[in-house]
Amino acid sequence: MDFRIIARDASCHARRGRLRTAHGTFDTPVFMPVGTQASVKSLSPDELEDLGAHIILGNTYHLLLRPGAERVARLGGLHRFMHWNRSILTDSGGFQVFSLARINRIEEDGVVFQSHIDGARHAITPETSMECQMQLGSDIAMCFDECTAYPVTYEYARESMLRTVRWAARSKEAHTLPEQSLFGIVQGGVFCDLRRDCLERLVETGFDGYALGSLSVGESKEEMLSVLEAVAPGLPAASPRYVMGVGTPEDLVEGVRCGVDMFDCVMPTRNARNGMLFTVRGGIQIKNSRYADDDRPIEEGCSCYTCRRFSRAYLRHLFLARELLAYRLNTLHNLHYYLGLMAAMREAIEANAFDRWRRSFYLDRENREPAEE
Amino acid sequence: MDFRIIARDASCHARRGRLRTAHGTFDTPVFMPVGTQASVKSLSPDELEDLGAHIILGNTYHLLLRPGAERVARLGGLHRFMHWNRSILTDSGGFQVFSLARINRIEEDGVVFQSHIDGARHAITPETSMECQMQLGSDIAMCFDECTAYPVTYEYARESMLRTVRWAARSKEAHTLPEQSLFGIVQGGVFCDLRRDCLERLVETGFDGYALGSLSVGESKEEMLSVLEAVAPGLPAASPRYVMGVGTPEDLVEGVRCGVDMFDCVMPTRNARNGMLFTVRGGIQIKNSRYADDDRPIEEGCSCYTCRRFSRAYLRHLFLARELLAYRLNTLHNLHYYLGLMAAMREAIEANAFDRWRRSFYLDRENREPAEE
Ligand SMILES: [Zn+2]
Ligand SMILES: [Zn+2]
Repeated sequence: MDFRIIARDASCHARRGRLRTAHGTFDTPVFMPVGTQASVKSLSPDELEDLGAHIILGNTYHLLLRPGAERVARLGGLHRFMHWNRSILTDSGGFQVFSLARINRIEEDGVVFQSHIDGARHAITPETSMECQMQLGSDIAMCFDECTAYPVTYEYARESMLRTVRWAARSKEAHTLPEQSLFGIVQGGVFCDLRRDCLERLVETGFDGYALGSLSVGESKEEMLSVLEAVAPGLPAASPRYVMGVGTPEDLVEGVRCGVDMFDCVMPTRNARNGMLFTVRGGIQIKNSRYADDDRPIEEGCSCYTCRRFSRAYLRHLFLARELLAYRLNTLHNLHYYLGLMAAMREAIEANAFDRWRRSFYLDRENREPAEE
Repeated sequence: MDFRIIARDASCHARRGRLRTAHGTFDTPVFMPVGTQASVKSLSPDELEDLGAHIILGNTYHLLLRPGAERVARLGGLHRFMHWNRSILTDSGGFQVFSLARINRIEEDGVVFQSHIDGARHAITPETSMECQMQLGSDIAMCFDECTAYPVTYEYARESMLRTVRWAARSKEAHTLPEQSLFGIVQGGVFCDLRRDCLERLVETGFDGYALGSLSVGESKEEMLSVLEAVAPGLPAASPRYVMGVGTPEDLVEGVRCGVDMFDCVMPTRNARNGMLFTVRGGIQIKNSRYADDDRPIEEGCSCYTCRRFSRAYLRHLFLARELLAYRLNTLHNLHYYLGLMAAMREAIEANAFDRWRRSFYLDRENREPAEE
């Protein structure tokens, strides 16, 4: 992996970088569409490429349950399996174990849990998480961590953070795939001193990049923002900085302002499937009866596949009729919006005009669609 | 509409034709993918074009309930609404009224029914069916008919057939869109004399094409084939002949042998969504555990989008994980198979070698996939 900073914005911590993995080079700040089960829901790999996606996220938890990481390895690795030749980051399985599975025990060794699919008992440890991620053959692997719930006591957050640090060391020890990078995950909940303590300990071990975990897990926007502002700018400047599972367009803008380079979130894809579409003026609910005879595209001037061809009236019809095409067309637009947002931020940083750009971003959003007010 | 016969096969009734509508020219025999609710399920119009589809079917019953034919008319017609610029045939609503809705009354005037969506009461008559189809702006409209159920008494089949003939005359009377063709529908169940009687009466009224309705509604393969053999070759030779809602690959081959020019069926698309994929050797169930580690495409040598990129193992995974992409990739392959089958038959007829081709078609199918025996 190679990471370099191309430009910095003088007004804030925002930075423009370039990241090279075993599967290509891309510009940061970057948004990674989520491909949970070896598929970014409803899209083909070609559509992802056409959208300008350069890196996607795969979920180790889902893939180890189905179809199994060993099977993916036998079939040539995740890139080949899903026919995606650009970069992939895999998470450690930690987040989903804590959010989807029924936990049986958290022990020093790892976590024993029951599959959300069939209730079968599994164990995941730093060592097995690394083994799975190496079998999947992603470009960037994540340390196995405990996702700190919200709310949580300071004492538990500290205990959990220290375990995450020990698991990170074991993850690094178990990680032996040279062309795969390994990122550490900063935990500590909403307690900024725990976050800083965690970071210091992780840096001592040394990783290729650093992530903030357990954000957007129920805390208020203010709490999230204060963690972001307190911790993100202090992440090692020479390495990629990644905020996991975040967030809204506003969250991405604030993350970039705080110097974050990488984001992933199910929001653009999941909301698309629920009929919520992003525009520069905010979200619209396509099922709204106001759009029944609306011959305009989702967003005037949007160059996405969906907007170049289809009206709001047609998209509303497809969505109400539960047509499979609805999910795809909505997803194409929403990811186009997210990836376009990142491109606009990269350009603004390069022009050293991020602060002005950010003000105009918020100004656009004050002018909502009449139907959505 | 313009229809001409390009070639005939000497061994049977098979014929190679060319049909021109207001939206383009295409070769027959032709298969029409079904786009029930203004969408061929899971596919974009571009994908349909890439597959080589030249005409699709829209369901008047579904479209009149949702989004409403008047609305489609306001939005510029069905072609514009769904961004499909090639030909469209719309059915009359008759078949779905009888198969999906709760029928309240069949009267001389028409049918009173309750929507399968919300139970709302609607009436459909020859005149309203024509009005809807003209509002949709399809290239080929179908007369409003009563789909004869199976089994049915001779007496009821005769009564129903005579009503269909009277409705056909009213359909023609109400049909006033010059660029839209109108086809008559031959009913009469499995009673060949009723079918012939019906045809004679329809020809007296005069239509742009003739269809056989109420096949594949529960009768045996032998019964269907005997109706096809007795009636299809007698449909007016100078007009397109259309067998509605049929069928399996074998049915298409036998239909073409009997001189049929047009087919539609949900089988390739619906089976795709159920994980049943067509190959020259017969169907395979992709969920079969035999394919879990199968790195081969669905069909070796298949040039479809799916087979050029993805393995059976990946398609099985997507299907079991209920990923939306599964439905699309399976549909692309199955429609490629169906459209390729029609192209192969057209070529065989042009070479005056249909009989030899047909024998090799059946020979291939004797050699099933081991997993599917
Ligand atoms: Zn768009
Ligand atoms: Zn194929």
